[in-house]
Amino acid sequence: MIYLDNAATTQMKQEVLDEMMPYFREYYGNASAVYELGNKSKYAIDVARDRAAALLHTKAERIFFTSGGSESDNWAIIKAAQMMSDKGRHLITSSIEHPAVINTMKALQDEGFDVTFLPVDEKGLVSVDSVRDAIREDTTLISIMTANNEIGTIEPVAEIGELAHEHGILFHTDAVQAFGQIPINPDEMNIDMLSASSHKIYGPKGVGLLYLSPKASRIRSLIHGGGQERNKRAGTENVPGIVGFGKACELASSTINERMQRESELRDYFIGKVPDEIPLTYLNGAEGRNRLPGNINIGFRFIEAESALILLDQKGIAASSGSACTAGSIDPSHVLLAIGRDEDEARESLRFTLSDTTTQEELDRTVDILKDIVGMLRSSNVLYQA
Amino acid sequence: MIYLDNAATTQMKQEVLDEMMPYFREYYGNASAVYELGNKSKYAIDVARDRAAALLHTKAERIFFTSGGSESDNWAIIKAAQMMSDKGRHLITSSIEHPAVINTMKALQDEGFDVTFLPVDEKGLVSVDSVRDAIREDTTLISIMTANNEIGTIEPVAEIGELAHEHGILFHTDAVQAFGQIPINPDEMNIDMLSASSHKIYGPKGVGLLYLSPKASRIRSLIHGGGQERNKRAGTENVPGIVGFGKACELASSTINERMQRESELRDYFIGKVPDEIPLTYLNGAEGRNRLPGNINIGFRFIEAESALILLDQKGIAASSGSACTAGSIDPSHVLLAIGRDEDEARESLRFTLSDTTTQEELDRTVDILKDIVGMLRSSNVLYQA
Repeated sequence: MIYLDNAATTQMKQEVLDEMMPYFREYYGNASAVYELGNKSKYAIDVARDRAAALLHTKAERIFFTSGGSESDNWAIIKAAQMMSDKGRHLITSSIEHPAVINTMKALQDEGFDVTFLPVDEKGLVSVDSVRDAIREDTTLISIMTANNEIGTIEPVAEIGELAHEHGILFHTDAVQAFGQIPINPDEMNIDMLSASSHKIYGPKGVGLLYLSPKASRIRSLIHGGGQERNKRAGTENVPGIVGFGKACELASSTINERMQRESELRDYFIGKVPDEIPLTYLNGAEGRNRLPGNINIGFRFIEAESALILLDQKGIAASSGSACTAGSIDPSHVLLAIGRDEDEARESLRFTLSDTTTQEELDRTVDILKDIVGMLRSSNVLYQA
Repeated sequence: MIYLDNAATTQMKQEVLDEMMPYFREYYGNASAVYELGNKSKYAIDVARDRAAALLHTKAERIFFTSGGSESDNWAIIKAAQMMSDKGRHLITSSIEHPAVINTMKALQDEGFDVTFLPVDEKGLVSVDSVRDAIREDTTLISIMTANNEIGTIEPVAEIGELAHEHGILFHTDAVQAFGQIPINPDEMNIDMLSASSHKIYGPKGVGLLYLSPKASRIRSLIHGGGQERNKRAGTENVPGIVGFGKACELASSTINERMQRESELRDYFIGKVPDEIPLTYLNGAEGRNRLPGNINIGFRFIEAESALILLDQKGIAASSGSACTAGSIDPSHVLLAIGRDEDEARESLRFTLSDTTTQEELDRTVDILKDIVGMLRSSNVLYQA
């Protein structure tokens, strides 16, 4: 099987699992307990926090572990909006955010917040000017993703954060897709809150983090209870999960440059080869440095992406369409619609995600199989024949 | 080491880990994806949901997986209170709830909700009459724990639920400590919402569930985003964690009667032996059928529990004082204060938790060591000497 689906980067590394193993049955103490076994767990979490902080070039005290990117997004957005609600109730985000941001913003609309969903250009870029134009007296929070999960476009986060700070506005970024894939320094990039997820960087599922700047660290908890995570996130710590996430962060730190170089080259090789081999295709999203190294999203005219996915699966290739969270839903990707594709185009696009084990041979084989599948699907499409 | 601390039941079973292992690196698909690897994950979650439902004698569709008991408590209480806020803003709970309930109720007080914290009797029992007296026209939610985590008292949950339903009030129970330890049937016990945690029944940390009755299943999400858990709880599913939790539920179902019998006997053996060997002790909490089989909480006059814990740890025995979530804090247990102990008494109480591997020999050794330690601590206490 060739894994180019959006779970491609989610196969946990053996080194990560090895690091987690002792914490399942041997060192199983409650990290908040006082005795020796609890101290082992507490120390292991400290190490993981240091490793996560190192990947963000920040201090450990800024890192709060959560159950994943969605919880981090909800926590940051809901609690920052509520904390600032005396100043105003206007929030700004983009129309291509992950559902964890979009649906959280919609829930806040139901609570009386006013949310501006900014459009993006045909590459999926949020323009800094559009953010400037949207800022009002009562704007309290801007949330723009670091990079888009479907089309890989990298947003001008540092500039947007600078603009936010000029206006005393808190800035959150959903970095789930970018964390560990491109360099991020929240302190230098004017980021107050940053969400990340473990399973996108070869770590375990069910763990994530929220980075909070000193200013943002005044937000209340989303999950109240015990004093874990310095009174910010209650719940018995998922020690093996956090340990695994920490190891994944350490591995990501040490390999990020090499992975970026390698995956960018493979990405551009595939993006260049597809139109040479298959007619009537187009790239969705930005190119070169404005695109995540491991993201490819290509439209194949006159096919149904869902049919292509099934045929690819039969031939041993896992790919994606839209985002996994909405797979099975019949709605076309909101991201592709936002960059100006129509509903038919949104339904003919396939997403290929590269991992650090993807090879050029796998990509060559994928293009060969795609060529057959796309040809077959088109031959049975009356619109194509016409 | 003899583990009688409140993490005693948290050492994951080897069978649980074995069941999880393939889902870390082999079947690592996103359970919401359409391809084959995703289907394996989806099927594994279905099996886990069936197993969790079986332990509660209910249907799988009533079970929603979360990141743990604290998230479940927050979700149930906050979202039920908000959903019912048109009808009223009065909530009822007890003064001996876990911090995940108490602090969530306090957060709702800050949002303008009116919360009654019911007192308990000297055994830690919430009386059904006190609940009846507290109910008002604008009461919308009652949350009473199934069994207390510190003193093991089992509350009259079925009667309180019946009373709630007579008044059209939603009933939530924090069953984290009772789930899998005593039989619970939410459908028969008039429970609308029930929180449980995996790591209290020898499953992995970082996983829990919320049971929602048909009526309660209208509550909104706490974590918005993708369509996971039937649109109720967003976030990529923690597949290995959920699989492990399911296995732990299956093991708990098949062993519950035998564990209850065995642990009750050991509990009563220890509770009977301590005062025979050590003078000036007293039991905190209820006796017999009104107490969790695996819970022991004993006050030793003229000692400091924190000092005793350190000495016990040195002698190879892990025990607890108060609840782990507040360990390290200098506040005396709110539960012990609520049952009428004064601050000195609250600081002289130790908690011993039995697991399914605890033996009578371990308890005998613990009493022997306790006798020495208590004697030593008392000999240096001027109040005792006086």
